[in-house]
Amino acid sequence: MIESSKKTKNEFSLSLWTDLYQITSAAAFFINGVNPRVSFELYVPKLPRNRNYLIAVGLEHVVEYLSEFRFTDDDIEFLRSLPQFCSTPKEFFSYLKEMRFGGDLWALPEGTPFFPREPILRITAPLIEAQIVESYILNAINYPITVASKAARIVESANHINVIDFGFRRAPTPHAAHFASRAAFIAGFEATSNLEGARRYGIPAIGIIPYSFVLPFESEQEALKKYARAFPNGALVLIDTLKPAEATREVIACGEKLRGVRISSKELLKLSRNVREMLNSAGHQDTKIIASGELDEVKIHKLVQANAPIDYFGVGAGLVSPAESETVEGTYKLVEIEDNGRIRYPEKFLSGRKILPGKKQILRKVDDNGKYCGDCISKAGEVPQNNEIACIRKIMERGKLISPLPSIKEIRKYCLEEIRKLPEELRNISGRYTYPVRISPSLRKIRKTIFIKKKR
Amino acid sequence: MIESSKKTKNEFSLSLWTDLYQITSAAAFFINGVNPRVSFELYVPKLPRNRNYLIAVGLEHVVEYLSEFRFTDDDIEFLRSLPQFCSTPKEFFSYLKEMRFGGDLWALPEGTPFFPREPILRITAPLIEAQIVESYILNAINYPITVASKAARIVESANHINVIDFGFRRAPTPHAAHFASRAAFIAGFEATSNLEGARRYGIPAIGIIPYSFVLPFESEQEALKKYARAFPNGALVLIDTLKPAEATREVIACGEKLRGVRISSKELLKLSRNVREMLNSAGHQDTKIIASGELDEVKIHKLVQANAPIDYFGVGAGLVSPAESETVEGTYKLVEIEDNGRIRYPEKFLSGRKILPGKKQILRKVDDNGKYCGDCISKAGEVPQNNEIACIRKIMERGKLISPLPSIKEIRKYCLEEIRKLPEELRNISGRYTYPVRISPSLRKIRKTIFIKKKR
Repeated sequence: MIESSKKTKNEFSLSLWTDLYQITSAAAFFINGVNPRVSFELYVPKLPRNRNYLIAVGLEHVVEYLSEFRFTDDDIEFLRSLPQFCSTPKEFFSYLKEMRFGGDLWALPEGTPFFPREPILRITAPLIEAQIVESYILNAINYPITVASKAARIVESANHINVIDFGFRRAPTPHAAHFASRAAFIAGFEATSNLEGARRYGIPAIGIIPYSFVLPFESEQEALKKYARAFPNGALVLIDTLKPAEATREVIACGEKLRGVRISSKELLKLSRNVREMLNSAGHQDTKIIASGELDEVKIHKLVQANAPIDYFGVGAGLVSPAESETVEGTYKLVEIEDNGRIRYPEKFLSGRKILPGKKQILRKVDDNGKYCGDCISKAGEVPQNNEIACIRKIMERGKLISPLPSIKEIRKYCLEEIRKLPEELRNISGRYTYPVRISPSLRKIRKTIFIKKKR
Repeated sequence: MIESSKKTKNEFSLSLWTDLYQITSAAAFFINGVNPRVSFELYVPKLPRNRNYLIAVGLEHVVEYLSEFRFTDDDIEFLRSLPQFCSTPKEFFSYLKEMRFGGDLWALPEGTPFFPREPILRITAPLIEAQIVESYILNAINYPITVASKAARIVESANHINVIDFGFRRAPTPHAAHFASRAAFIAGFEATSNLEGARRYGIPAIGIIPYSFVLPFESEQEALKKYARAFPNGALVLIDTLKPAEATREVIACGEKLRGVRISSKELLKLSRNVREMLNSAGHQDTKIIASGELDEVKIHKLVQANAPIDYFGVGAGLVSPAESETVEGTYKLVEIEDNGRIRYPEKFLSGRKILPGKKQILRKVDDNGKYCGDCISKAGEVPQNNEIACIRKIMERGKLISPLPSIKEIRKYCLEEIRKLPEELRNISGRYTYPVRISPSLRKIRKTIFIKKKR
């Protein structure tokens, strides 16, 4: 990944960030002159464990990728060096060299809740372009959706107490940390400890005094006094996890201004109460308590229910390293082929699988209270009823963004509003509730036609 | 992450890829003139579930990071814009601007097996430098170690049958896929489907015809004939997972040269036997069978034990998305402070925790058969016995690499040799076995001194 910095000398591209078979397939299509205009759609076949809904995040990563998609001379040179392409005609590589993404992109706006089988992204482009981008798009979107959907639950469980992303060092890789910081902020987190994430995406940054700061000094008091000299506006202090009561006394004894203390423990309820009491007795009513320590939505929910005197929850691994069972797995499927003006569906493939053919739309019904009460997966272009919203919007046309993407603050505001419009039951972090999603009659008709044709 | 490409216009750096508190701590150290030469060591406190040993991988990422470490004008400008630094003197930012990593780096060579509590990396540098790099180093090394250690088990279970990395799209992010491809290759994987991983690290690339290739065509036979026209040397074909027997017949009926067929199923034993028989009956004895489908070391072990006629195993999520319980969590701790020529240990901190003080070495004992039979964690500089190897080596001195890092092929060869030298019991993927690791008398003496001082 540091390679990318080295590439400052040359051009940099992401076009090889894919599986080899995407390029061998492209070559075989090209050589046979098979390159009709097609549509692929990305959807999530099923909800991970303990999820009632998912949040669409990651579109910005996809748009950046598609906008800059091109093969550099270095990329082509590498491909030609592979044994797989030893007899591939040079015209194919000239074609790659000229290739840009010139298709249309439709998608759910970032921050929109969605459900299994609903299309969240559609690409309409010549087959080769639409196919070659599959691996990167899938990879770039699964993790942000996973993290945002987890983050929404954490925010829900915290019930208006602020939640902070402390995941940088626990994310799978440094880049993943940035994706995670962005996804978490969109879903309602307040701030992040990840500096590059904060800079790149405009997220408020937050930092505590780590315990390692204390180590070079002879005592905690000395360390804190030194820190206070550097940050006279007050500090956020990490209370030693081994002897928290003693450490709290020491911190108070310093007499310095304390913006907050961070406690990290497996017994946060008891500890937060003790620390709050000690702080209050010493006149530090305004000092905030930040709690962390292997937190997730279940633990936070319990603490909130018990009225633990905690002002901020810091979440690390519980946010950025979701369990296998919580991981979202999108799939990107060919749904429509335009052959000489005639629309056809990849019938053989669709018939045996639960894939919905054709370009589609999500029509979301709004009840009299402004709440969402059910979705209809329809054919693209079906006219929504008065009380329905067409969720999928056109994002790029002929490879160009049709209007600037919203800022992260706008996305976050929209996301939190959208979540509030979901049925209450869906937002319950421990209950299972299936949001009604139906398939429109005209879409069912297409499926039926395919099945009947197939059976004949 | 695409930002990095945009940065081609400006400078690019990774110095903000860290937690904010690393920089606030640095500021507090700087302002107080506290910047002694110190040593930090990175180690893994405990083995993940089902692991008897771990493989050290990721050093190359760390060396690249340290070699290029610097704050650009953009980085400084961003830091100064943060409310946390509103009253921080400008001298601190001048200091950051000039800062390079000028310390010493000692580490286990990549590909070396190691055990809990053993130091795998040591940085000796001025406190601020040594502290500020913590977050990135931890983040950059945990995932490669996790993947390499998992990959070693997968390779072991395959018992000389080739294993291939199909993880690109299932990795947490695109960058993680590259880290994973490299780590897996070092631990014995043969090839990867990840093109950029292949290019960046010089790993053989492999590609199958994906099933999506077939979809735009009217039939599988037509698709395969077209593919064969493009790749006359023979193809690797994915057999449709829904109707594999029928699909195999179709593939054979094409009469094209088949290098291999890829089967993907939950019942690989039965399917591989059927497909092998069909291929053999049709005279395709040379056609290889590549098996995939949610494989991991346990499933591969069963297939190998049952003599499934499989020539290659393709592993995706089972390699690149290890379960939470399989994830390695390193920790980076201050172990020694040089104060005006006097060595001291961060006593307060060490005494209550199971951390070994001081700069350390791993002495690995070799028995008469050339096998490893036990480690001793010693003080750095303790002289190894005749039958002991000092594992930790100096990698960088005063910020410069002392000799070029080995190539990935050299690392892989070394890694496989090292694994072969481990006791057999350790390599059993289902058994638990604790490799003997002791602490040298002189190191124990230091610990004792600390405890006694503390208790007084």
